Amino acid sequence: MNKSAAAEHSAGVGAEAFKAALKSTADAVNAELDRLIPAVSEPEGYVVEAMRYAALDGGKRLRPFLVCAAADLFDVPRTQSLRVAAAVEMVHCYSLIHDDLPAMDDDDLRRGRPTVHRQFDEATAILAGDALLTESFAVLADPATHPDGNIRIALVQELARASGAAGMVGGQMIDLRAAELNLDDAGLRQLQDLKTGCIIACACRSGAVVAGATNEQIDALGAYGIALGLAFQIADDILDVEGSAAETGKATGKDEAAGKETFVSRMGLENAKSYARSLADDAVGHLKAFGDKAALLREAAMFTVNRRN
Amino acid sequence: MNKSAAAEHSAGVGAEAFKAALKSTADAVNAELDRLIPAVSEPEGYVVEAMRYAALDGGKRLRPFLVCAAADLFDVPRTQSLRVAAAVEMVHCYSLIHDDLPAMDDDDLRRGRPTVHRQFDEATAILAGDALLTESFAVLADPATHPDGNIRIALVQELARASGAAGMVGGQMIDLRAAELNLDDAGLRQLQDLKTGCIIACACRSGAVVAGATNEQIDALGAYGIALGLAFQIADDILDVEGSAAETGKATGKDEAAGKETFVSRMGLENAKSYARSLADDAVGHLKAFGDKAALLREAAMFTVNRRN
Repeated sequence: MNKSAAAEHSAGVGAEAFKAALKSTADAVNAELDRLIPAVSEPEGYVVEAMRYAALDGGKRLRPFLVCAAADLFDVPRTQSLRVAAAVEMVHCYSLIHDDLPAMDDDDLRRGRPTVHRQFDEATAILAGDALLTESFAVLADPATHPDGNIRIALVQELARASGAAGMVGGQMIDLRAAELNLDDAGLRQLQDLKTGCIIACACRSGAVVAGATNEQIDALGAYGIALGLAFQIADDILDVEGSAAETGKATGKDEAAGKETFVSRMGLENAKSYARSLADDAVGHLKAFGDKAALLREAAMFTVNRRN
Repeated sequence: MNKSAAAEHSAGVGAEAFKAALKSTADAVNAELDRLIPAVSEPEGYVVEAMRYAALDGGKRLRPFLVCAAADLFDVPRTQSLRVAAAVEMVHCYSLIHDDLPAMDDDDLRRGRPTVHRQFDEATAILAGDALLTESFAVLADPATHPDGNIRIALVQELARASGAAGMVGGQMIDLRAAELNLDDAGLRQLQDLKTGCIIACACRSGAVVAGATNEQIDALGAYGIALGLAFQIADDILDVEGSAAETGKATGKDEAAGKETFVSRMGLENAKSYARSLADDAVGHLKAFGDKAALLREAAMFTVNRRN
């Protein structure tokens, strides 16, 4: 019979070991991003400065962690998985820059610092986002990421699919039009799958792709990622209601103030919490084939629904 | 001894044949873009509508022509070269959408129609640009572009390099800061090489890359493209002074009104014209190794400096 996720959890590596692994991946990916986006003194250096400001900002680096943890299932050299992780994080960072723009969510604060268009200016923020997106593909295409061109192009395909109009950008489009679209539960789930889930699933899948894993393995990690991504988003909605700005590093209570539909507003706080927990269980279920090696990924699912920021 | 470009021209295919080839490539790439960006009825379809509005707008399609004409030197199947051409044009179209935004050049008119942010809205314009950029890499990564993954990843690498912070985006950054940077002649040339030249050179190089051409052949076509790109930009500056809005489909006299430094403002109209012609000759010089097969590319160089729109 299926063990419950909580039972798997107790047999796992423990939250502290997971936090340590998350922190050490974050440090390693920060160093990788620092190397991959070197400051330049050329006249165009201003946009690179904005890219570095956005990319080296001390986020949790959940997506890079997922790339590396998935790749670790197959013993991929960290030199390779960190480049893939950095590419996925560049796409995440570009999306945050553009989402924060005045024409979009109009946010002044991100992870406790001024957003890119507030720190630089709007034009530079748009260009820095464009350049980070472009650079993510340049990083994947570089032979340093993997000697086999077929692996590298498969990575490009994963990232492009997850982040385009049928993925992350499509999700942001739906989000901007959510009020007029009058979304039902399935519509809200689709919004979140596209906006957050696709790129989180892409992170998990990419760790397997760079390993040359089977389609079955790639798909299992993708399914883990989709469930994890939705759990993550619901946890975010819960934090928006329960958290404080000091804990989360961004303004809270914004969803309600904006009249934005969330899982919490639709199903109530307790139901949303239990839905998030069931998604985390669902995510863990997809890891069965990987045995004990997947302990950190199991912990990640638990962390996602228990996090305070 | 070197034949002059004018002499090569008289021995070439003639301006009419070139215009017919440009038109037929434009028709073919329009059909390809129409297929590659199908309208969707999903909630995220609004951004796809904006992508289609921007991509299917009746431009000259010079970059796609260059991809196809370069690929034709090596008898690449048109099914392959048109996909590469469409990908390069998607990047060009995304750059126009973002350059036109209020925070950038703030243009209301593009090729005689409202710009994307005027026709839709600013947020949708930003997202449509993001999605076109992303989709360009998805198109290149798809096995339909070429069966060999090493060729496809080389195409991704070309396009990412040409369009990022060390290419097109960097050029736009310099352009936005041109007044405060106080550019000298070399600085102005670098601005134009990055902003316009890199992606035009990329179009020419990519036609050779998809053919599996030698590095020498790829570099020759790249050098042709850089010279052509600069000639093209100077011709644009000349048109801004000499052309009318009816001919060019966009507002003219804008550079002077904006106090913008151009080759015309720096060297005077006649010197700029003769510089453009010498660049076209330079471009033609790089085609020597390709013999008669390069007649259309020679014509393209002539067309660039003689165009009226």
